[in-house]
Amino acid sequence: MSDGSRPEHPRNYSTDLPVTGAWQPGDPAGNRRFFTLDRPRLFELEGGGALREVTLAYETWGTLDPDGANAVLICHALTGDSHVTGEAGRGHPTPGWWGEMVGPGKALDTDELFVVCANVLGGCQGSTGPSSPHPDTGRPYGSSFPTLTVRDIVRSQRRLADHLGIGRWLTVVGGSMGAMQALEWGVMFPERVGSVCSLAGCMAASAQQIGWSAVGRTALALDPHWRGGDYYRNPPGQGPHAGLAIARSLAQITYRSDEVFEDRFGRELFDTRSVYGKWDRFQVESYLDYHGEKLVKRFDANTYLVLNRVMDLHDIGRDRGGLAAAAARITSPVLSLSITSDTLYPPRQQVELHDAVVAAGGRCVYTVVDSPHGHDGFLLEVEAVGQAISDFLDKVGSGAS
Amino acid sequence: MSDGSRPEHPRNYSTDLPVTGAWQPGDPAGNRRFFTLDRPRLFELEGGGALREVTLAYETWGTLDPDGANAVLICHALTGDSHVTGEAGRGHPTPGWWGEMVGPGKALDTDELFVVCANVLGGCQGSTGPSSPHPDTGRPYGSSFPTLTVRDIVRSQRRLADHLGIGRWLTVVGGSMGAMQALEWGVMFPERVGSVCSLAGCMAASAQQIGWSAVGRTALALDPHWRGGDYYRNPPGQGPHAGLAIARSLAQITYRSDEVFEDRFGRELFDTRSVYGKWDRFQVESYLDYHGEKLVKRFDANTYLVLNRVMDLHDIGRDRGGLAAAAARITSPVLSLSITSDTLYPPRQQVELHDAVVAAGGRCVYTVVDSPHGHDGFLLEVEAVGQAISDFLDKVGSGAS
Repeated sequence: MSDGSRPEHPRNYSTDLPVTGAWQPGDPAGNRRFFTLDRPRLFELEGGGALREVTLAYETWGTLDPDGANAVLICHALTGDSHVTGEAGRGHPTPGWWGEMVGPGKALDTDELFVVCANVLGGCQGSTGPSSPHPDTGRPYGSSFPTLTVRDIVRSQRRLADHLGIGRWLTVVGGSMGAMQALEWGVMFPERVGSVCSLAGCMAASAQQIGWSAVGRTALALDPHWRGGDYYRNPPGQGPHAGLAIARSLAQITYRSDEVFEDRFGRELFDTRSVYGKWDRFQVESYLDYHGEKLVKRFDANTYLVLNRVMDLHDIGRDRGGLAAAAARITSPVLSLSITSDTLYPPRQQVELHDAVVAAGGRCVYTVVDSPHGHDGFLLEVEAVGQAISDFLDKVGSGAS
Repeated sequence: MSDGSRPEHPRNYSTDLPVTGAWQPGDPAGNRRFFTLDRPRLFELEGGGALREVTLAYETWGTLDPDGANAVLICHALTGDSHVTGEAGRGHPTPGWWGEMVGPGKALDTDELFVVCANVLGGCQGSTGPSSPHPDTGRPYGSSFPTLTVRDIVRSQRRLADHLGIGRWLTVVGGSMGAMQALEWGVMFPERVGSVCSLAGCMAASAQQIGWSAVGRTALALDPHWRGGDYYRNPPGQGPHAGLAIARSLAQITYRSDEVFEDRFGRELFDTRSVYGKWDRFQVESYLDYHGEKLVKRFDANTYLVLNRVMDLHDIGRDRGGLAAAAARITSPVLSLSITSDTLYPPRQQVELHDAVVAAGGRCVYTVVDSPHGHDGFLLEVEAVGQAISDFLDKVGSGAS
């Protein structure tokens, strides 16, 4: 520990790095549109409390059929946003996160489908979240932002569906936190979904998932720049960057697999000419730092905390008499898809979903994609996952059974 | 985040909690003895640099046979120490960590064997480590403590063996970081070991293992009380407790398994009457906090960093022409034992050890213990692991083949 530049030292972030990577009002809209839930003005939350003037940023691709029957809702994962496909550019810090899945001639074919994705409530890419201005003060919510749940997110999406004139989604698709939303759509609004595609998700967050979340949150909160969530007036460069980067690095390991890490990094050193000497820095460390730093530039630490908790609180059985009773509310066909090497959302969870739906007399297709990529396989195995979705949609049609 | 008492707030530690949980000179020795490596006075390190007046704290059980042939070395894991068996009490903050394995009539039977365990070099329970006084200044090494490797630790143990008059261990046994030491014994000093028992270990740390270590270290270093490693003069209550607790909590998840977490905690809430409300605190979070806080009371944050790095740097192939060449140096029989559900040290690693030893013409018994307990199974599955060790020792005898 004698070398001040050694890797366990918190990285110093550029002094002009904004304290949050959130999209801010006044920034270029890019491909976003905005919808404000203004009737009723108060958006009540499952955990108590309410939000006023909730805005959702969303994007669409393709054309809605006159009968509104070709609309597909894509629900994004923890650090995703509405930008499913498209270039990075003004207003969009990153290219679309599922560009190979969505577009003309792709598995979700925008020549035929009208695809919608909204940044989730609590998010930081245009929808109302902790970095958004509070309507009373004009200053970011920060520490006063309430606890959300997947159900709150889905209720806000249903309002968007009403606004867009979509009475019933052909299907609702999502992976990870997106799968939680897709599943809640099936449970909360069975008449509004033709089918549900739950990829690498679960009916209820497991103890291990909660454990990972909790450690990441606690590490983030250890960052002195976090200030209990009220860091938006810190000087540039003094946001909770290090804390957010650590939470992300931790999560990044859970998203991949031993096999992929071993193949990709093994024990390769980052820079054998480094002043650290040959002991001090492995490629995998550099990779984890890179992912942490990359997220810091486009994300908000409080949104990370809020959405992490959203995932922990995910439990379709809560206040509904348990998982079996909740699964029985789903009337549409369900695709339940796992990745073989996913240790974060292990296949058992999607098997449990399948079994619960079938036990309740519903229709469920269980598919497991053989991949070494771990949880991120739902994003990376575009061909296999896309094929599974296409096959499922061909089989179940619009879901009316 | 509106409630200042919410769990993502760093816990406030008692204002009288010492900044380190290290054993300090002047504390009760308990069952420890001390050996100082004073000839030559400079203990050279693999990574460069050297230490003066290196002390090892060790404990022994049973009686050494006149021919010295019944001596067993136990090597402890990351947060272990010399106190393999025995009560907690003066000088020993915790009861023995393998008390069910070692003792009269137990798998490592102290009626017949002379069992030795030393706190590792770099440790904090009596052996020279970053919390020890530097011989020049009398103040803790802190940030000036050098980088260590498993080979340094093993060379210090060989000096202890010389001191105790043990020419050849009947066997060297260890799990996890202990397995790394046992294996290096076999490679570095083949003539001094009758056999090697490597439990839930590996020939070289994997990229994923390094990744977990790195994230824990980075989180620890984010604690403002860590001060680059020089926290020993901080006021009580202001040690890097929160950082060390987070690193431990993270590791604790990797030590167990999804199955055990689900069985034990599921989605149980910590306290349904809690002021946090029903959303805010799960049993598993309380469990992880508990393990973090428990470690803080008996461990030193810098030792955690140093030994974590020791594990990352473990690679028996380094500067020996690779793993196969290193495995070929082992002349004694090897027990290579895995736990089925171990995701931190997955069974593939012990299989690789087995295959490398056998490919080099050596003798290796590979055993897998079927257990849901994950990596910690090497500690918890006393009966199965003990039986495997007994069977192995019965089969290979003193290892001379």
